[in-house]
Amino acid sequence: MVASAFLPELWTEILIPVCAVVGIVFSLFQWFIVSRVRVSADQGASSSSGGANNGKNGYGDYLIEEEEGVNDQSVVAKCAEIQTAISEGATSFLFTEYRYVGVFMVIFAAIIFVFLGSVEGFSTENKPCTYDDTKTCKPALATAAFSTIAFILGAVTSVLSGFLGMKIATYANARTTLEARKGVGKAFIVAFRSGAVMGFLLAASGLLVLYITINVFKIYYGEDWEGLFEAITGYGLGGSSMALFGRVGGGIYTKAADVGADLVGKIERNIPEDDPRNPAVIADNVGDNVGDIAGMGSDLFGSYAEASCAALVVASISSFGINHDFTAMCYPLLISSMGILVCLITTLFATDFFEIKAVKEIEPALKNQLIISTVIMTVGIAIVSYVGLPSSFTIFNFGAQKVVKNWQLFLCVCVGLWAGLIIGFVTEYYTSNAYSPVQDVADSCRTGAATNVIFGLALGYKSVIIPIFAIAVSIFVSFSFAAMYGVAVAALGMLSTIATGLAIDAYGPISDNAGGIAEMAGMSHRIRERTDALDAAGNTTAAIGKGFAIGSAALVSLALFGAFVSRAGVHTVDVLTPKVIIGLLVGAMLPYWFSAMTMKSVGSAALKMVEEVRRQFNTIPGLMEGTAKPDYATCVKISTDASIKEMIPPGCLVMLTPLIVGFFFGVETLSGVLAGSLVSGVQIAISASNTGGAWDNAKKYIEAGVSEHAKSLGPKGSEPHKAAVIGDTIGDPLKDTSGPSLNILIKLMAVESLVFAPFFATHGGHLLLWSLVYNQNALEQLERLDMAFESTIKKDLFGRLHQVYRKQMFDGGEVHSVRKKTEQKLLNSGFVLPINGSSPSFKKKL
Amino acid sequence: MVASAFLPELWTEILIPVCAVVGIVFSLFQWFIVSRVRVSADQGASSSSGGANNGKNGYGDYLIEEEEGVNDQSVVAKCAEIQTAISEGATSFLFTEYRYVGVFMVIFAAIIFVFLGSVEGFSTENKPCTYDDTKTCKPALATAAFSTIAFILGAVTSVLSGFLGMKIATYANARTTLEARKGVGKAFIVAFRSGAVMGFLLAASGLLVLYITINVFKIYYGEDWEGLFEAITGYGLGGSSMALFGRVGGGIYTKAADVGADLVGKIERNIPEDDPRNPAVIADNVGDNVGDIAGMGSDLFGSYAEASCAALVVASISSFGINHDFTAMCYPLLISSMGILVCLITTLFATDFFEIKAVKEIEPALKNQLIISTVIMTVGIAIVSYVGLPSSFTIFNFGAQKVVKNWQLFLCVCVGLWAGLIIGFVTEYYTSNAYSPVQDVADSCRTGAATNVIFGLALGYKSVIIPIFAIAVSIFVSFSFAAMYGVAVAALGMLSTIATGLAIDAYGPISDNAGGIAEMAGMSHRIRERTDALDAAGNTTAAIGKGFAIGSAALVSLALFGAFVSRAGVHTVDVLTPKVIIGLLVGAMLPYWFSAMTMKSVGSAALKMVEEVRRQFNTIPGLMEGTAKPDYATCVKISTDASIKEMIPPGCLVMLTPLIVGFFFGVETLSGVLAGSLVSGVQIAISASNTGGAWDNAKKYIEAGVSEHAKSLGPKGSEPHKAAVIGDTIGDPLKDTSGPSLNILIKLMAVESLVFAPFFATHGGHLLLWSLVYNQNALEQLERLDMAFESTIKKDLFGRLHQVYRKQMFDGGEVHSVRKKTEQKLLNSGFVLPINGSSPSFKKKL
Repeated sequence: MVASAFLPELWTEILIPVCAVVGIVFSLFQWFIVSRVRVSADQGASSSSGGANNGKNGYGDYLIEEEEGVNDQSVVAKCAEIQTAISEGATSFLFTEYRYVGVFMVIFAAIIFVFLGSVEGFSTENKPCTYDDTKTCKPALATAAFSTIAFILGAVTSVLSGFLGMKIATYANARTTLEARKGVGKAFIVAFRSGAVMGFLLAASGLLVLYITINVFKIYYGEDWEGLFEAITGYGLGGSSMALFGRVGGGIYTKAADVGADLVGKIERNIPEDDPRNPAVIADNVGDNVGDIAGMGSDLFGSYAEASCAALVVASISSFGINHDFTAMCYPLLISSMGILVCLITTLFATDFFEIKAVKEIEPALKNQLIISTVIMTVGIAIVSYVGLPSSFTIFNFGAQKVVKNWQLFLCVCVGLWAGLIIGFVTEYYTSNAYSPVQDVADSCRTGAATNVIFGLALGYKSVIIPIFAIAVSIFVSFSFAAMYGVAVAALGMLSTIATGLAIDAYGPISDNAGGIAEMAGMSHRIRERTDALDAAGNTTAAIGKGFAIGSAALVSLALFGAFVSRAGVHTVDVLTPKVIIGLLVGAMLPYWFSAMTMKSVGSAALKMVEEVRRQFNTIPGLMEGTAKPDYATCVKISTDASIKEMIPPGCLVMLTPLIVGFFFGVETLSGVLAGSLVSGVQIAISASNTGGAWDNAKKYIEAGVSEHAKSLGPKGSEPHKAAVIGDTIGDPLKDTSGPSLNILIKLMAVESLVFAPFFATHGGHLLLWSLVYNQNALEQLERLDMAFESTIKKDLFGRLHQVYRKQMFDGGEVHSVRKKTEQKLLNSGFVLPINGSSPSFKKKL
Repeated sequence: MVASAFLPELWTEILIPVCAVVGIVFSLFQWFIVSRVRVSADQGASSSSGGANNGKNGYGDYLIEEEEGVNDQSVVAKCAEIQTAISEGATSFLFTEYRYVGVFMVIFAAIIFVFLGSVEGFSTENKPCTYDDTKTCKPALATAAFSTIAFILGAVTSVLSGFLGMKIATYANARTTLEARKGVGKAFIVAFRSGAVMGFLLAASGLLVLYITINVFKIYYGEDWEGLFEAITGYGLGGSSMALFGRVGGGIYTKAADVGADLVGKIERNIPEDDPRNPAVIADNVGDNVGDIAGMGSDLFGSYAEASCAALVVASISSFGINHDFTAMCYPLLISSMGILVCLITTLFATDFFEIKAVKEIEPALKNQLIISTVIMTVGIAIVSYVGLPSSFTIFNFGAQKVVKNWQLFLCVCVGLWAGLIIGFVTEYYTSNAYSPVQDVADSCRTGAATNVIFGLALGYKSVIIPIFAIAVSIFVSFSFAAMYGVAVAALGMLSTIATGLAIDAYGPISDNAGGIAEMAGMSHRIRERTDALDAAGNTTAAIGKGFAIGSAALVSLALFGAFVSRAGVHTVDVLTPKVIIGLLVGAMLPYWFSAMTMKSVGSAALKMVEEVRRQFNTIPGLMEGTAKPDYATCVKISTDASIKEMIPPGCLVMLTPLIVGFFFGVETLSGVLAGSLVSGVQIAISASNTGGAWDNAKKYIEAGVSEHAKSLGPKGSEPHKAAVIGDTIGDPLKDTSGPSLNILIKLMAVESLVFAPFFATHGGHLLLWSLVYNQNALEQLERLDMAFESTIKKDLFGRLHQVYRKQMFDGGEVHSVRKKTEQKLLNSGFVLPINGSSPSFKKKL
């Protein structure tokens, strides 16, 4: 049982940061390669071809016959100008967003500190540890302080991840456009490398900051690993709460601009997408970067941070933590380190080992990335599990310890990894126009927008079936093998290839922007066709990325839920109690409430945008003729203001619900709320994303007209196409605002509950005075138990009882006296009361 | 504790059937009054005015100035002809449906008999009772046989309720049209009385059949009330499984016809709704009767039967059943009896005490019905609770008995009753165009169909918030006071005013049909305006009715769930076990799967209908000009065939899921599935119904153009109106097919699980051999318990353990031997093993 991992602690200490640094260096190297495409007008755009390329990367083999207009300096100048406008718009929005979010961060950091500090009345004295009361552990005040620091670190890392991702994306979009003049392969490689910059930077910096934080905190905490890793959970909360604002704010921004631009431009004025005459076009392109890039980055960073925290906190009260086996404790980080190396190799397959020469090779190349990384990672996990874990160990399982073998944990990680791949491919099946589901939706456009919407909604509902089974199997296997620790590492398994996932995901908006820039710069139709091909592949990968994000969010939030109940000392969450069932019901409602808010926000913001765009078309003479320039800045401002204003109510809903439920109704009801919002939210998130993706691609299917069937529905401007555009517009807020934001809803409520668990366990449940009645019943039952015998089962009962009346701690009068009496009885019977909030059960006094 | 109810048993035996008979007589009386409006051409239509009316019912005070065309015999003949066509179409569809459903019924009856009979290996010997092993109870084979009979009775009653409702509705529609010539008040009273016929017939016959069944079964069962009321649960299953086909088949029928008629007629050909030139118009009107009337009737009958069964089965293992207190046992039936009397008085307020004179009085009159019935019923419940219950009694609460006072049970029923009213009014707020939510949706039509859909979806999501809180509060209060019995009587409280609820609900489709007949018969514009006013009020009451149906379905299914776990011997459904959490997740997915099927079915059937309607318009010369008659029959046939074919897959999903999950994964996973589908399904059902209702009324708001705002969006044919029509068409399958069908999904899976509970408890969980591992752990823990002491808690633990390894009963080899060994140990330690499947816990051998 006390066997250690094969890998010595020193090696672990070295390997993790080395892998993280390798990832960062690789990311910077990719950035360097991208940067060699010049966008400044005075130097020409072809310098990359005159540079140091020696054909090794396929850079020598120009598709020369496709080159055109390489030396047209005015086009390059125009691209540079548009890029600057997009980049400035995005930067200015993010800075505005961060200003508001900064205020929130400070307030919330204070709340964390005060609430957690109050658990032991701000005492600075050490206390006996819960897992062994002969040892001394750090006071709750220290956990409060370090949780606050971890929260801020997580928030800052999340913000940086999103911001840097946006920076590289806006840096790469015009470069992709310019490279498209040389061929689709070259454009692809620029967009993909830029995506990889973001992927690796995020995965590696997330790992590095977490690793450093653990090591710094350890200086204070010493042997008190339980306290250490409880404090670390703040990191996940910080990451995820920033992701909330990134996703919601960015999502509202991008879709307000997109819907507004489409409604007037495409539907009323009949001008093409991204036409420079459309006043909302810059806002639309900015939106892709702040929503799909910065928001997505923060979201996946949050998942990653939370999954790691959930695994670590459960491990800290398992044999790894109790025996101080540092390597095994760091197993989650080792998995992520291995992931960076695996993704690095995988990336080379796309950038160096193979070369894209034709449009039809793009989508397979991106899909192969997923398959290659999953296959290699399976081997990687096997290695890490062999060297990083003892062959047998125990895992904390709600009051009991469960024996786990290292091969079982290997299977837990694998099942998550492969479930991610399955979810990805199912998502592709339902959202790519190469398959029948989307073609059926396109076909239903014959009879108008109404049937299109009905079929699209039905498709979204249907697309949840297999992903849910995949998630259910992952949960069943990992939970059966290693309880909540298994679920947490399954989530990490799904996220282990995050660098590759993000690379192919970020590739999408970059290509989308590249197409927009080509259109706005007035480049030739052939360039636009190439960028459209890149974009179409990007649409599918974006949907796959969303599938990953949701799948991992489901596993992560379950793992966090498990960590929460462990930390709060709850041993059962029984649906057959009123407190839990109402929690489930209300929890299942929250995603609807949240979606209503975000969708209404997009709708209202889009209405404002429509009015502004119409106003400009009506009042600016020469705008439709292209002789006058629209006022882009006003549209950018409308999107910015609307998204900042509108992100506050849904943000409050998510952040306040756990606090209110936990404080007034107690941990059981909160457990119900978390479980309810998880099982309901994941369905809406998947169906919303897929419905939106399917409508988008049904429209593209009609527009592209590649098959006989598609031609019969087109061309652009036909009645079926108009119906398809309506579907696409409806899908925008579903797939880019409310759907993805739900990931955050379910994760964030869980991680917040985890961080505040000791507070709720000590001070929660104020409203439910009914529990007093239960308490007395339980007491009577307890008295009838023979006090002398001690068994796991009995401990369990005591733990639950304690749970119940600890809630009464802060009520005066009758309740207080009942509690006092009970405690006295227990003390007389040879039990000691634990004094901190994180104890899972009573202790027998020796 | 053993105090009996105040009301003597004899009085109970008399009062219940008397109330039921009063309801039936009242219903027939209303039918008689309606029948005095003549529709046969040779006698004239004004005979009711020349009849025996003496002004008592306001029949003397004709709104003479509104009379027009009373003696135009050709109009009356035409109405009669259309009515016959609708009635024949509906009858023919229902007979076709019942033929298929009949086959299902026979097969499923056989399954019930075989599965339940196999619990004790078809033994015909009596066995010791579980609540007292000194008494003898009937064998499982008897329960199997009587459950099968109850199932058939429930199914037949459900079919009859739906069929008779349809009959009176198709009998009343033309009469309403004809009365509309005399004034809106007279038309209202005909439509309302016809609705009341259905409401009272259904409530009273449901009660009467149930009462007679109980009394007949009692002849065999004698003192074995547990077996008696377990067998009675078949009645609920029968009612609800017919409702499934009624709702799904009828829902697909009505919406395929409606969507098909609208898409070609209103959108393509620009002819008004219900125009006789539209070939799908008869199918559309038939649909209202088979979907909204027959389907709704079966649905609410199912809820009523299930709530009664759930309450009875829990009561039978509580003090009522154990002490054989017949009056208290019949408390659920007494509530329903009182409900019939209260609704009778309420109806008089609409038909006799007050008189509708103007359009604007219609909606308040209908809403007052709800308020009046709720207020009077509150008093009624107080009386029933006082005379029908002992002042204090115990209720079975998952292995323990809970002491309950009669005033607590009164509160349980009341909280359900009033929650229903709240849900009704919230539904009205979100779906009536008198309030801002629908007006906002209408306003969003300015920017096209896309924003209309986005706002409509957001409205639907938002509209779940308050109903969910209302349901949650009801559950919390009733569950806290009286465990699952409390929840069951809360559901009965919500359903106690079912006769009034159904009356105002059925009124809607009758008015809708009346308008259709007016249009088709070519009656004057003024008549159509009057029927439209009736219809608009009907739309809102239909939405309220759906709100009731969903709210009660939620409570009923929770009550059934509670009865199921009690009967299956499950004492906790712990979310923190892999079996339960995957059940929750998959259960929450089922409503999406089901909705995907039903929506796709409507879409496909509508496409076929569109093609047929287009074909007729294109190939029948003179159709558009009104000189040729369309081929109505083909459209009726398309709807019939499509709905019969398409109702099978969703039907199988609902009926097979509990059987598959229970048999292969066991009762814990099934519990999770039930809880998951409940908490997820109720949200989708509410949001789908309200979204659809809001779109419908937003369209009507623009069409009616009563305010400045509405006028700015109209008139008919304007761009905003076209966008509103698209929204209305999308909403059709949501509000009339998939939404209401979800009620049945959640209820039916629960009642099916309840009926098959002993089978699952004995033979279930085959796939989950993992449980063997848990079993051994549990065994080890058990051995460490001191076998000598007996306490409630310990019994509870034994019960749970027993549950675990009873699942292994039918596995051979190792599992079997482990079980044998355990059982031997338990027997040696002074415990006896119960031999039937319904025992909740081990018994101490005396």
